[in-house]
Amino acid sequence: MENKKLNFDKFKVSPRKGSNIKKTIAVMSGKGGVGKSSVTSLIASKLRKDGKKIAILDADITGPSIPQAFGIEDRIRALEDGAMIPAKSKSGIEIMSINLVLDSKTSPVVWRSSIVTNVLKQFYSEADWGDLDYLLIDMPPGTSDIPLTVFQSLNIDGVIAVTTPQDLVGMVVEKSLNMAKMMGKPILGIVENMSYFKAPDTGKVYKIFGEGATDDIANKFAIDTVSKLAINPKITKMIDEGRIEDVEEKDLDNIIKKIKNL
Amino acid sequence: MENKKLNFDKFKVSPRKGSNIKKTIAVMSGKGGVGKSSVTSLIASKLRKDGKKIAILDADITGPSIPQAFGIEDRIRALEDGAMIPAKSKSGIEIMSINLVLDSKTSPVVWRSSIVTNVLKQFYSEADWGDLDYLLIDMPPGTSDIPLTVFQSLNIDGVIAVTTPQDLVGMVVEKSLNMAKMMGKPILGIVENMSYFKAPDTGKVYKIFGEGATDDIANKFAIDTVSKLAINPKITKMIDEGRIEDVEEKDLDNIIKKIKNL
Repeated sequence: MENKKLNFDKFKVSPRKGSNIKKTIAVMSGKGGVGKSSVTSLIASKLRKDGKKIAILDADITGPSIPQAFGIEDRIRALEDGAMIPAKSKSGIEIMSINLVLDSKTSPVVWRSSIVTNVLKQFYSEADWGDLDYLLIDMPPGTSDIPLTVFQSLNIDGVIAVTTPQDLVGMVVEKSLNMAKMMGKPILGIVENMSYFKAPDTGKVYKIFGEGATDDIANKFAIDTVSKLAINPKITKMIDEGRIEDVEEKDLDNIIKKIKNL
Repeated sequence: MENKKLNFDKFKVSPRKGSNIKKTIAVMSGKGGVGKSSVTSLIASKLRKDGKKIAILDADITGPSIPQAFGIEDRIRALEDGAMIPAKSKSGIEIMSINLVLDSKTSPVVWRSSIVTNVLKQFYSEADWGDLDYLLIDMPPGTSDIPLTVFQSLNIDGVIAVTTPQDLVGMVVEKSLNMAKMMGKPILGIVENMSYFKAPDTGKVYKIFGEGATDDIANKFAIDTVSKLAINPKITKMIDEGRIEDVEEKDLDNIIKKIKNL
């Protein structure tokens, strides 16, 4: 090899010819179950409403949530020339997810990690994305193969971190923020999900998962954009019904603005 | 190879000489953030209170939660003969976790999966467990390398599944139940965590994460033992303070009984 510098370029994969992606944003956490998929879906839906061309790559191959949130029954189609045609949501968001390929949505993906990683790369590089303003990548939990591959092999323009108020969660989220930093990825903002619960009858606010150290974490990592989202049973219900696109979530507006300024 | 039958025995690893583990139970979900670590810790604490010799293997190498729940500052020690001495909780539960080895608890484990899997096997086979009534394994999310290695390489006597009421979560949990079934592991019970929130002031119950399909899932997989745990801000706080051993959680009694009858 001529190039003796330490670099990751040899790991890079590119979208197929004809795909033109302006910006790619990874939504990560390190921790599972904090709402990465909800946040990804809400951001995608809002950007779509604003007239942008959007796609989501569901990189959580063993625990894919995106198709259910959008209520997609459509499948990914493969063309003869090897191109994969993403499924489309009601509002026209393109979606690549393993659950749009499997026979049943509850079939487990009991694959060694090298295979899972290859599927991710294939989704990214063989999809016929067309022209996109934003590709959002919904990351799985952890800091091992898939997040590592996303950061090493894909062209990531920015990262959005998702956390909850629990100290325990914050600790794991810091691991993934340290990973993003190590790998030179700019962190655009942090979303504290499940920040509080407001009783629908009395209007009283309960800090169910604690006070939260999200502002401290944001300071530590010099993240200037913090969103806090309530626990909202209506949104949970709309996700379970596949209607995430009908949700209005104004509390992500600062993150959306940050993305548009990229 | 002489043995032409398909079997997994060649993948098996054994605990080191001098370790005597009566029963090994995996706590899994497929989905992250549902409370596998809390459930593991609560079960371990109760069994310990009942006089059993208990250890926890924190198999969530990239998102370890167990040391924080028990407030452990102790470290895993390595002896000259290669044995690893687990850390001990206040009540005497032995614990192996990557966060008891790392310099900082927020250091990310940015390792390829083959390395992560080897660390898991080392923890299992090189720890000096002594005599144990129960080894509990806190599994990471997903159905890829670590869960696959736990099921293939360790001697698992039973599985406890953890879910929440969200349909979306149930779907992913079904993936992991299907995986356990495929690999011939008996499912002892299912815990529906975050089942409801009871306002501490008014006593009113809110089904924050929906009604839940846990009973349907239990029926589908012929699981006869179902526990439902409330969202309890006190427990969240005690976990953040490292005091999980002080929690009394009677709603796991049926699962505890099932474990004792193994």
